[in-house]
Amino acid sequence: MAITYSEEIQVERAKTTKINSVDFNNLAFGKIFSDHMFVCDFEDGKWQTPKILPYQPITLQPSSKIFHYGQSIFEGMKAYKDENGSVFLFRPIDNCKRLNISAKRLAMPEIPEDYFMNGLKELLKIEKDWIPTSEGSALYIRPFMFATGEGFHASPADSYKLVIAFAPSGPYFSGDVKVLIEEKYSRSANGGVGFAKAGGNYAGQFYPTQLAKEKGYQQVIWTDDNTHEYIEEAGAMNIFVRINDTLLTVPTSDRILDGITRKSILKIAEDEGIKTEVRKIKVSELIEASENGSLKELFGAGTAAVVSPISGFGFKGKNYDLPKLEDTFGARLKKRITDIQTNKAEDPFGWRIKVC
Amino acid sequence: MAITYSEEIQVERAKTTKINSVDFNNLAFGKIFSDHMFVCDFEDGKWQTPKILPYQPITLQPSSKIFHYGQSIFEGMKAYKDENGSVFLFRPIDNCKRLNISAKRLAMPEIPEDYFMNGLKELLKIEKDWIPTSEGSALYIRPFMFATGEGFHASPADSYKLVIAFAPSGPYFSGDVKVLIEEKYSRSANGGVGFAKAGGNYAGQFYPTQLAKEKGYQQVIWTDDNTHEYIEEAGAMNIFVRINDTLLTVPTSDRILDGITRKSILKIAEDEGIKTEVRKIKVSELIEASENGSLKELFGAGTAAVVSPISGFGFKGKNYDLPKLEDTFGARLKKRITDIQTNKAEDPFGWRIKVC
Repeated sequence: MAITYSEEIQVERAKTTKINSVDFNNLAFGKIFSDHMFVCDFEDGKWQTPKILPYQPITLQPSSKIFHYGQSIFEGMKAYKDENGSVFLFRPIDNCKRLNISAKRLAMPEIPEDYFMNGLKELLKIEKDWIPTSEGSALYIRPFMFATGEGFHASPADSYKLVIAFAPSGPYFSGDVKVLIEEKYSRSANGGVGFAKAGGNYAGQFYPTQLAKEKGYQQVIWTDDNTHEYIEEAGAMNIFVRINDTLLTVPTSDRILDGITRKSILKIAEDEGIKTEVRKIKVSELIEASENGSLKELFGAGTAAVVSPISGFGFKGKNYDLPKLEDTFGARLKKRITDIQTNKAEDPFGWRIKVC
Repeated sequence: MAITYSEEIQVERAKTTKINSVDFNNLAFGKIFSDHMFVCDFEDGKWQTPKILPYQPITLQPSSKIFHYGQSIFEGMKAYKDENGSVFLFRPIDNCKRLNISAKRLAMPEIPEDYFMNGLKELLKIEKDWIPTSEGSALYIRPFMFATGEGFHASPADSYKLVIAFAPSGPYFSGDVKVLIEEKYSRSANGGVGFAKAGGNYAGQFYPTQLAKEKGYQQVIWTDDNTHEYIEEAGAMNIFVRINDTLLTVPTSDRILDGITRKSILKIAEDEGIKTEVRKIKVSELIEASENGSLKELFGAGTAAVVSPISGFGFKGKNYDLPKLEDTFGARLKKRITDIQTNKAEDPFGWRIKVC
């Protein structure tokens, strides 16, 4: 008889809960963590018994390769609760598949989908009271894997740890989002790791983003590292551009993350009868469209950011404001995807998975 | 009165030593660690009291940003002991400066040079018996800094930990080194973090290096991500090329690490009357030189690798063997730099620093 992995998970319950100290109506993003976490270690060439443990510190040797050689990857997901208290995930298999794409590129072990999914579902069942239901909030899910194996030798580690932790979270951005189109720094190389959700891709963005913040922008729109003529992504989100009534986004590549929100928004837009185009977008095209009035909207799309309207962008020292429209593609698409995620609308795409 | 930082270091001695269990004549690279480590935490906007502690595990919250956003940098240095038992460092200030260059690019705090140098020297005094003296071995020194601050939000951490740990080590490479010139994957982008000793730069190299290993090569020579026409560096070392009697290496850039061994080798070569050229090198030039017999030597240079002769390289499925010369630039330069490092030769450059 087949034993499912979920039956094999070792569960150790926390003796107390922190839930009563949490103000679920005033949640920051990713700052409070639930009572339990899922942990699975890769040792001796295989994934060991998965465990659900009280959320607790991780102890590592100073020579663990996570501290030296950057073998760390993660995913971002959300769980939602509907009016009846049912719990849902959104396209979770896609996150697992992408985690494994990242793992392969960083020479880390791939996690079997059932290990991942069963662990996540079991943890969600235990933590379902941690899912916030107020407008714009959700239970943010952070699966991450890193090298635990030791040695001051630049080679892949021989052991790894996968953790899934939960953070009940409010919106990722507070207030207006303005972006700076980058002319000097770059996020990723051709043939590099830009398509992977690798820790190192984020650290490299912080300094240029700090410089942008000093100029009044919250995020950077990255451009290709060779010419800086083409827009790529914004680091925490993919970018959508509305020119007249066409919704544009750039194709994914080995430099650009294959965002799950990105591809869902494309699908929903098509379903809504919005004309979409997936093609390269020149910075000069954006400037021109802004100047001739055909640039109607700019927004970011990502699990954390959901759909985040951008109110203006900067390039070569000049600011370009987006028009303030009443009925935007962004708002329409955000409502539709959020309604699907939270079981307020039909899901013709088969994306929503009921957990319990 | 000025209080030096070294007087302020809190020292907690280990109760026992592991030193008697170590076979100093058969050392691997970076696998055994000495009894103590230097630790300094950056919290509340400043570096806290530096400490020397027994070498011990590090405990972190699962939400520490090292696990998520790749804020991790390191350095590689060595300490040497001469016949009289005196202890030396080689250009250590350059490592501290480069650590701070890396820190800035990854939006991490810079460490004051005296904090770094005093901590390192004090630790060396305590651990001087750990410095191996057998041919080709040294005490490998690994300073590293990483984000400890918490949160599932892609922004710089608010706290960091700097650690300096020691590993008595033998040679980095064992046996023949063959390299593959990369045609598809890349190490770094223009405007990226390739010049920084950032953890993420290493993780991204592992998978392409694994593929190279499967073809019988130990390292990859990276090429520019745009055209793959120009050689850059080998990830664990900078690359030197001898064509006839000229020693060539490529200029450093924002994609290439400013190697301390690299610049020392250039200086020594000039001092030895070897003609040097620092300029871009096309892969096609290397192939042509190999085919017409003018390519005499290829070697890597780095703190871990010292000077590592390369016996052959691969490109587009073809192997190119280097000639087996009697008296090589590589061997001559390696002897000279090692003699300076270990106090066997005069140091006209002022690179060697006596610690105790």
